[in-house]
Amino acid sequence: MATKGIILSGMRPTGRLHLGHQSVLNNWVRLQDEYNCFFMVADWHAITTGWEEAKEVYPNTIEMVADWLATGIDPEKSVIFRQSSVLEHAELHLMFSMVTPLSWLERVPTYKDQVQKLGEMGKDINTYGFLGYPLLQAADILVYRANAVPVGEDQLPHIELTREVARRFNYQFKSVFPEPQGIINKEVAVLPGVDGAKMSKSYHNYISIGANAEEIKKNVNQMVTDPARIRKTDPGNPQVCVVHKFHRLYNADLLEGIETECKAGSIGCVACKKQLASSLEDQLSPIRERREQILTKKGYIDEILRAGDEKARAAARQTMEEVRAAIFG
Amino acid sequence: MATKGIILSGMRPTGRLHLGHQSVLNNWVRLQDEYNCFFMVADWHAITTGWEEAKEVYPNTIEMVADWLATGIDPEKSVIFRQSSVLEHAELHLMFSMVTPLSWLERVPTYKDQVQKLGEMGKDINTYGFLGYPLLQAADILVYRANAVPVGEDQLPHIELTREVARRFNYQFKSVFPEPQGIINKEVAVLPGVDGAKMSKSYHNYISIGANAEEIKKNVNQMVTDPARIRKTDPGNPQVCVVHKFHRLYNADLLEGIETECKAGSIGCVACKKQLASSLEDQLSPIRERREQILTKKGYIDEILRAGDEKARAAARQTMEEVRAAIFG
Repeated sequence: MATKGIILSGMRPTGRLHLGHQSVLNNWVRLQDEYNCFFMVADWHAITTGWEEAKEVYPNTIEMVADWLATGIDPEKSVIFRQSSVLEHAELHLMFSMVTPLSWLERVPTYKDQVQKLGEMGKDINTYGFLGYPLLQAADILVYRANAVPVGEDQLPHIELTREVARRFNYQFKSVFPEPQGIINKEVAVLPGVDGAKMSKSYHNYISIGANAEEIKKNVNQMVTDPARIRKTDPGNPQVCVVHKFHRLYNADLLEGIETECKAGSIGCVACKKQLASSLEDQLSPIRERREQILTKKGYIDEILRAGDEKARAAARQTMEEVRAAIFG
Repeated sequence: MATKGIILSGMRPTGRLHLGHQSVLNNWVRLQDEYNCFFMVADWHAITTGWEEAKEVYPNTIEMVADWLATGIDPEKSVIFRQSSVLEHAELHLMFSMVTPLSWLERVPTYKDQVQKLGEMGKDINTYGFLGYPLLQAADILVYRANAVPVGEDQLPHIELTREVARRFNYQFKSVFPEPQGIINKEVAVLPGVDGAKMSKSYHNYISIGANAEEIKKNVNQMVTDPARIRKTDPGNPQVCVVHKFHRLYNADLLEGIETECKAGSIGCVACKKQLASSLEDQLSPIRERREQILTKKGYIDEILRAGDEKARAAARQTMEEVRAAIFG
């Protein structure tokens, strides 16, 4: 029996997911058969950048895991668990902190960026914990001895740090950890929000994965189209149109026709939006129905998390036994 | 029933303790009746300043706890446990790291001192973990909701940091933690080593608490006396004599007589040392015998630690349940 590789991936519990998350989730769904996957609710990470939303972590977790399940994450195949339920993450983070030079963390490109960016938003995150959060990520990954981590390009420096930490530990003590590879998801489409900016919860420009027909219609109607196109008969420029970017993803079959009609001024924005809303509704309604079914079963997600926590804990414990033996011999 | 206060104190497992530790230990013994005491083998702290001795942590723990028990620490009264057995320390440390500004840690007076001092000894401790170790101490203390911590003067800034962290947490979330007080042990006598420098394991100038008659004799013979006193009949200056400093502590009854004779040149250093060795032997032999008895019982200390770990874990778990509820509601 060939041993499958191990994957760790996680999301901060920020509530209902939106279409910007869908390509990541679809990738997770695909990876489930190839790998033993650990999908983590990163609830400790959710508080590294602010405590204000700590009280939302639990309800947000339920909403987010509902989206995971509705999209096809299968608790029979993968381990769905909460970071905060596995104290071994904190233990390994502490062990790693003893072998990690401060400069490695200060050098992480996202660090100074984020401190400044959030500082401008009035959030002071110049904390010890925020400096160390890439090290917590390293512990998240390595406590399951994951050898692969699906990431966006911007996360590669964190994977590199994880590899350095693993290498240093293995060299100093004993070869306990693999050096995990980042799997870049090439199919990630950076989806704009309805206003054309990056789709993001904090910009209020998103469409939820579980959106209903009403919400879809409303969101699509808000989408920004070619501003130079005044009358329906004006030729449109699809390159600057948000609706078009969505057609490309959710209406690939009809894309060519829509593009031609838009450029010719033979389809108006209203009709074009109607087509998109209808396609989105077709593609999202099965997810929405599964989502609703899942949330109707009282305690179902809690049960899945409890079981996942158990499995994650068992795996993490085994690693930490080896880690302790490697250190303290 | 009046509730007793709670004390947390700990020592790094560096092996057999020496007479420089005795006043601290005697203080612990006294505190046992007044407080619920948690005495911690600080094994994680032992690796914040270097990994080289990690393999010695277990044998050192056994030797150190043997000294604790022989001196009168009573596992029926107090909880004797290993830090690394209670993962909640790491969890609380991680939680605290999220509310602790980097500057609080950079400001701890011992920090830059130590980085430099150990740097000169060729030890690079410019790690993330070393910067955070006063925060780990805060977690050690607060996870038991200790309201008192016996400390030396130099440790007061760490207690102050602990109080600040507790205060910030209580303010931000819910009043879970007391603000612990440092108990300064006024009876701590700074005992010189046999060479007149501070008694320390790393200077090889110490007398073990469990020393046998042979070792005591040898160590006392190494003690530095008044260098100006050449002949036995020369008048001596007790102020500059290491032997005299030990007489003060271990021979208080005879001190006046010895001092007079030394100044008069009527007692020689050899005889004076013999008196000291004999007093030390009288006072250390009961400890040594208990120590040997304890170490003869195979697995006895392991058993005490296992039981203590359980008790400590139960107390820490209760605190962390409140902490999690306070944060995540």
